[in-house]
Amino acid sequence: MLRVTVWNENRHEQSNPKVSEVYPKGIHGAIAEFLQSENTEVSTATLDDAEHGLTEEVLQSTDVLLWWGHIAHDEVEDEIVEKVRQRVLDGMGLIVLHSGHFSKIFKVLMGTSCDLKWREADEKERIWIVDPSHPITEGLGEYIELEAEEMYGEHFDIPAPDELVMVSWFEGGEVFRSGCTYRRGQGKIFYFRPGHETYPTYYNTDIQRVIQNAVQWAKPVNLPKPVYGNAKALEEIKSK
Amino acid sequence: MLRVTVWNENRHEQSNPKVSEVYPKGIHGAIAEFLQSENTEVSTATLDDAEHGLTEEVLQSTDVLLWWGHIAHDEVEDEIVEKVRQRVLDGMGLIVLHSGHFSKIFKVLMGTSCDLKWREADEKERIWIVDPSHPITEGLGEYIELEAEEMYGEHFDIPAPDELVMVSWFEGGEVFRSGCTYRRGQGKIFYFRPGHETYPTYYNTDIQRVIQNAVQWAKPVNLPKPVYGNAKALEEIKSK
Amino acid sequence: MLRVTVWNENRHEQSNPKVSEVYPKGIHGAIAEFLQSENTEVSTATLDDAEHGLTEEVLQSTDVLLWWGHIAHDEVEDEIVEKVRQRVLDGMGLIVLHSGHFSKIFKVLMGTSCDLKWREADEKERIWIVDPSHPITEGLGEYIELEAEEMYGEHFDIPAPDELVMVSWFEGGEVFRSGCTYRRGQGKIFYFRPGHETYPTYYNTDIQRVIQNAVQWAKPVNLPKPVYGNAKALEEIKSK
Amino acid sequence: MLRVTVWNENRHEQSNPKVSEVYPKGIHGAIAEFLQSENTEVSTATLDDAEHGLTEEVLQSTDVLLWWGHIAHDEVEDEIVEKVRQRVLDGMGLIVLHSGHFSKIFKVLMGTSCDLKWREADEKERIWIVDPSHPITEGLGEYIELEAEEMYGEHFDIPAPDELVMVSWFEGGEVFRSGCTYRRGQGKIFYFRPGHETYPTYYNTDIQRVIQNAVQWAKPVNLPKPVYGNAKALEEIKSK
Repeated sequence: MLRVTVWNENRHEQSNPKVSEVYPKGIHGAIAEFLQSENTEVSTATLDDAEHGLTEEVLQSTDVLLWWGHIAHDEVEDEIVEKVRQRVLDGMGLIVLHSGHFSKIFKVLMGTSCDLKWREADEKERIWIVDPSHPITEGLGEYIELEAEEMYGEHFDIPAPDELVMVSWFEGGEVFRSGCTYRRGQGKIFYFRPGHETYPTYYNTDIQRVIQNAVQWAKPVNLPKPVYGNAKALEEIKSK
Repeated sequence: MLRVTVWNENRHEQSNPKVSEVYPKGIHGAIAEFLQSENTEVSTATLDDAEHGLTEEVLQSTDVLLWWGHIAHDEVEDEIVEKVRQRVLDGMGLIVLHSGHFSKIFKVLMGTSCDLKWREADEKERIWIVDPSHPITEGLGEYIELEAEEMYGEHFDIPAPDELVMVSWFEGGEVFRSGCTYRRGQGKIFYFRPGHETYPTYYNTDIQRVIQNAVQWAKPVNLPKPVYGNAKALEEIKSK
Repeated sequence: MLRVTVWNENRHEQSNPKVSEVYPKGIHGAIAEFLQSENTEVSTATLDDAEHGLTEEVLQSTDVLLWWGHIAHDEVEDEIVEKVRQRVLDGMGLIVLHSGHFSKIFKVLMGTSCDLKWREADEKERIWIVDPSHPITEGLGEYIELEAEEMYGEHFDIPAPDELVMVSWFEGGEVFRSGCTYRRGQGKIFYFRPGHETYPTYYNTDIQRVIQNAVQWAKPVNLPKPVYGNAKALEEIKSK
Repeated sequence: MLRVTVWNENRHEQSNPKVSEVYPKGIHGAIAEFLQSENTEVSTATLDDAEHGLTEEVLQSTDVLLWWGHIAHDEVEDEIVEKVRQRVLDGMGLIVLHSGHFSKIFKVLMGTSCDLKWREADEKERIWIVDPSHPITEGLGEYIELEAEEMYGEHFDIPAPDELVMVSWFEGGEVFRSGCTYRRGQGKIFYFRPGHETYPTYYNTDIQRVIQNAVQWAKPVNLPKPVYGNAKALEEIKSK
């Protein structure tokens, strides 16, 4: 049984009727719904929960964490961010969605500004698959088309992804590295671009498929934590 | 049901009693035995079979192909090599073992000489895991120790691996990139260093674990073959 | 003094007046002109020269080779291709331009089909820089805009580049990995997309800048060729 | 004129006579000496200088910064670390030496723990070059041998390097990724393992060569800082 936690800032849903209309159960609710399956147990957590819903117990029993945030990144406690980071290094998968590019957790794991160009103009996005060998693309076609989305454009200030899976074309003239994998410690990270709060992006079955695949891909590997620190010699060292 | 084919040159086994003693069913037989499982159907094929046992039918029904060869690389027909290459580009996984580094199929997929240093001196090898997030390392410890193996040393003339999973230490003073992944077209490739014919390396349960994991990792992704060639515009192009 | 050889198929120039009008000295002539400098000695070579102008002597005295070909890839002798490949593995830089993606030399070095989507529709291309730390981008802005070019679209069947430097946006709806680096043996390779024969692309000063930068980046490193083959132990090996 | 700043914690030199005997001018002094050249202007800065010698002015006029630290990582002010990080993202090269793996600046740029195994046992290290195409290897042989060094062993908890240039073999049985490059923002980073304070490692001419090469490799690219934030469309967006 894979244990997934969907974390959402859940603020737009409270303040913007346009958003709550699109996502009446919150973005986290919508995502939880399509991730739930026979082999996957899904919980949700939000910013306003105690400890943002990310207690030690929740983190320890989460195999893969999804992260959606936007206007309240700064309200996420540094201490919680550090706990999440530690869990990723210890093997928990992390899937960062859309505006989560500017979340504290993504920024500390990347080391860069994670900045980008953006525009809200109801424009078309076409997400091209550039690595058709990657399990995250299972079941897709050559590209995913979204009639209207927010634009994110290069330069996207991230480390070069370990694997670049998808690149977006935008009607207004930009491109963007939209599907990027990283490994940090024993954990696997997937950044996936689309998902502006005012669009029904998370109801698109291709988008759902990518996230489902990513959850499978990001699950922890069963391997003891490497031993660090002072180490005895495994072989005899000749005196000089 | 995953369909695996283990290909072996199977020549040392015919000519060198030391080898047939260690591998009475051939290296292919030993590998097939530990790969066979409830969910994995394993066949074997050897150089001296008609079409080297790699007919169009066999290749089309193989999800992951393993390759062991050494003294008879040149006897593998170019036409068959090209068919195998095509199948890899179309999604078949390929696991190249030990002296297979010099096989025609590995060399055409890499583009480089694939040359290296070597020595047969019954020396100790310790294979360190450098990427503990990788599914190929599932169930292992920090390293795999082999009391006696052939040495392979750097410089190993391969393209920089997409993922470097393991690095070997050798008693005689060399290091080697021992576990390397590549993606070519829709196919995934894993090169795994150990497995000299005179040592019981393929009976080592850690070595078996790596190969079992690699087979799972290398399985094809279900995605239509990308469309190539002349393409109609998806968006209107303004006349200049 | 850097020694550069610009190789061009030089066939369109003979048969298509539109091309010879744009490139009266041939594509090779146009490229040679902007590469020539105080510190760079440039020669040209074409398909119809003896040994395609790539004699052993020429190759041995070339630090960086540029390659433009399109309709006559098949006429390039396999033996010459193999010599070029060997020189790349021995350290010669190689810059593959535009339709050179389908040249024999690029395909053998990549191991994949190097296939792609294409369209001739006088459409706009905007080449975005995605790695602004790369020396190949020195002196550029955020993107290069070309009013009319041939389209190349994903999926581009290449190994994941060692470094992805540029991504193109096309008016008709596609994206493309337009600036890609690879290392093979001791040699460095840069693939650069633009340059269809009927457009004055190689007169664009940004395009020229990229190619000038790439030549500097691709120059050989002064390092003895690694030693391959049987190797004596550097450290004592204990008898078992 | 390339402007280089060598930063050193400079504490062992004050407290341990063994170290001050090996490095009478401090580790920074020894490094500055072999970096100084006709085209390279070298300054030094240490922990106990005001603002650790890394004022805004110093940072703005530094092209490449070298970093050696060990027992006093925690005394480096977070504010200064953040300024250095910003300069790296803006293009300044950074070369992190030996125990600098645990410096604040390296850890925030990597996002991981940067932990490793270590042992002080006067053992032999042999640093093998695994990428002989890389400019950092210019002028070296196949490996660098150090008669006695501290051991650093895998697992080294870093992101997979953008380029892996060197791998160390240690007498006591470990291996280590010793020469690693990264790009962060517009800046280039090189981590280079050797250099324990009690050994004359920085007087070894091969080690000096690597650091000289790395300084050249890491120098900033002249490119305007990418524009981030809200962006006007470059192409017309059709109303839906």
